[in-house]
Amino acid sequence: MRDARPALAVDVGGTKLAVGVADPGGRLISWAQRPTPRDLGAEQLWRTLDALITQVLRTAGIRDAAELAGVGCGCGGPMEWPSGRVSPLNIPAWRAFPLRDRLAERFGAIAVRLHNDAICMVAAEHWRGAGRGSSNVLGMVVSTGVGGGLILDGHLVKGTSGNAGHIGHVVVDPASGPACTCGGFGCLEAVARGPALAEWAQGQGWRPDQAGVTARELAGDGAQGHPVALAALRRAGRALGIAIASATHLCDLEVVSVGGGLSQAGAMLFDPLEEALRTHAKMYFARRVRVVPAALGQSAGLVGAAALVFVPERYWAGD
Amino acid sequence: MRDARPALAVDVGGTKLAVGVADPGGRLISWAQRPTPRDLGAEQLWRTLDALITQVLRTAGIRDAAELAGVGCGCGGPMEWPSGRVSPLNIPAWRAFPLRDRLAERFGAIAVRLHNDAICMVAAEHWRGAGRGSSNVLGMVVSTGVGGGLILDGHLVKGTSGNAGHIGHVVVDPASGPACTCGGFGCLEAVARGPALAEWAQGQGWRPDQAGVTARELAGDGAQGHPVALAALRRAGRALGIAIASATHLCDLEVVSVGGGLSQAGAMLFDPLEEALRTHAKMYFARRVRVVPAALGQSAGLVGAAALVFVPERYWAGD
Repeated sequence: MRDARPALAVDVGGTKLAVGVADPGGRLISWAQRPTPRDLGAEQLWRTLDALITQVLRTAGIRDAAELAGVGCGCGGPMEWPSGRVSPLNIPAWRAFPLRDRLAERFGAIAVRLHNDAICMVAAEHWRGAGRGSSNVLGMVVSTGVGGGLILDGHLVKGTSGNAGHIGHVVVDPASGPACTCGGFGCLEAVARGPALAEWAQGQGWRPDQAGVTARELAGDGAQGHPVALAALRRAGRALGIAIASATHLCDLEVVSVGGGLSQAGAMLFDPLEEALRTHAKMYFARRVRVVPAALGQSAGLVGAAALVFVPERYWAGD
Repeated sequence: MRDARPALAVDVGGTKLAVGVADPGGRLISWAQRPTPRDLGAEQLWRTLDALITQVLRTAGIRDAAELAGVGCGCGGPMEWPSGRVSPLNIPAWRAFPLRDRLAERFGAIAVRLHNDAICMVAAEHWRGAGRGSSNVLGMVVSTGVGGGLILDGHLVKGTSGNAGHIGHVVVDPASGPACTCGGFGCLEAVARGPALAEWAQGQGWRPDQAGVTARELAGDGAQGHPVALAALRRAGRALGIAIASATHLCDLEVVSVGGGLSQAGAMLFDPLEEALRTHAKMYFARRVRVVPAALGQSAGLVGAAALVFVPERYWAGD
C-alpha cells in the first residue's frame, strides 16, 4: 500500500526560509515562511530554521518524526551533493554547513534528502506543474541569479557532481558579454539576472542616480512604456532565447519552464525571448520546444522538496 | 550465462559504408568498408550495403542469423527514431528510407537496433574508449559537420525525439556568426565544420583560387606554419571551447571526447580550444572537465553499433 504519510518540505534561500507539510500528491497541507535573517552566525541561523520547522509541525499536528514519510530540502547552491554540505552564495554564514546531517540528526531514522533549490524547482514543475507529462524539461529560475535543473528521459539529471542544470552559465555573448560572478564572461546570468538588468538600464539613463533600484521597478517602468526599461528587458529576453536554443539543440527538450521574479515581466520578456529562440532553434526537432511560465510560483521550492521524498526514483538519485 | 555470440555492426555514412562482426567485448573480429556510392537510387544503395554485409558475414564464417546476438547500425542523421526511417543529410538517395525495417527483414527474429552515427560514436567512446569509467560524457565528431552524443548519469540521453547531443547547433557567436546549414546562425557547426574552415581561410587569402581544397590541406599548411591556416584552426578551436564550456555548465560533464577528421589537427586545434574553455568554464565543478581526443578512431562507429546490441540498458532506450 502506498505510504499515506505526509512529508516535511524545507526551502532555504537567501531571501526567505520556507517550511511546509505536503501530502503524497504534492499538495501543501500547511506552511510558513519568514525572511532569511542576516548577520547571524551559522548556528544561530540553523536554530532559526529549526524553530520554523517546529512551528509548522505543530500547526500540522505532527508530534513525531515517525508520522512523516521523510524530509526533503532545497537550498541555494553551490553544495556538495549528495552529502548536503551547503555553501549558498547568498547566505555567507553557511560555508560547508552540514545541513543534511543536521536535519538527519533532528529527525532520526526517516529519509532526509537535500538538493539545489533550482533542482527542486524543476522537479516540482515536472511533477505537478508546467512540465507535467513531458519527459524532457528544463526548469529555469530567473531572479537574482539565473538557475536551472534538467529532466531528461523522464529523470532528473545529476551530472558529475550533482550540478547539472546550470543554464545561467551557458555562454550567450562571447564577443562583448559582461563579466559574470562566476569568473567567466558572456554567461546568460551576467546579462539576464535582475541586478544586471537594472545596472545596464541605469548605465543607459534609466533612474541614473537612484540607489537600490531593482528589476522589479524596471519591469514596472517598462509596463509604463519607458524605452530604456523595455530595451533592458528585450536584451535579457534575447539572451534567454539564445541560451534556450542552445540547450534545446543539445538536450532535445520538449518544455522549458521559466519562473523567478523576472518572469513576472510577462510579454516584455517572453516576446523577445521567443523571437531569439525561433531565430536560433532551427533544427526540425528543436522547433517544437515550448517555453512556458512556471506554474507553481512561490510554492515550487516546497513542492519540489517534497518530490525528493515521494518520487525518489525520478528526482533523487543520491544515496 | 552471458551470450557469447557476436553482433553484426553496420555504419552508414556519406563518405563510407562499413560493416563488421564484433565480439561481446567490443572487439572487431572482421570488418570491411567501401566508399558510399553516389548517384544510385534508394534500392540500389540498399543492395550495395546488403552485398557488403553478405561479404563480411561470409568472411567471419557466419551462415545463419541465429549465430548472431543481434544487429546494430549507426547512420547519418536526421532520422525518425526508434523507427529507423533515415534521411541522412549527405545521402540524398535515402529520404525516410526504412533502414531498420530492411535490416529486420533480412535478419528475421534477432534484435536490430539503429541510431544516429554520432550517438554510436559516443556509445563506443563510453563503452570502450576515451570515456570509459566516466558517467557524464559528451562525444563529439568534428568533420564535414559537427555532431555529438550525450551520456549523462551513465546512460545515453535520447531526448524528446532521439536527437539529444546536437552540440553542433549550440550558439557560439550570435553577434556576427555565419549562417548555418540548419537555417540558424552563429552555430558551432557553422564556424567549426571542415568546409567552413576552408571557406573562411580562402576568404582570408589562403589558396584563394583553388577549388575543392579541404580542411585536411588546411591542417597540412598549418603544420607548415601558414598564418591564415593557423588562424582558421584557432577560430574553430575557440568556437569548440565556448560550446564545450556551455555544455559543461549545463550538463556537469566529466569528459568530452573529440573525434572526426578535424581532430587530427592536434594542438593547432586543441590549444585554442583549451584556452577558450578555461576562459569560460569557471564554475568550480566545470573546471574539472577533461577534453580528450577520441580513442577509437575509424572503428568507433562499428564499436558503437555493437554497443547497441550488447549493452542496450545503457545505450539503447528504444523499443
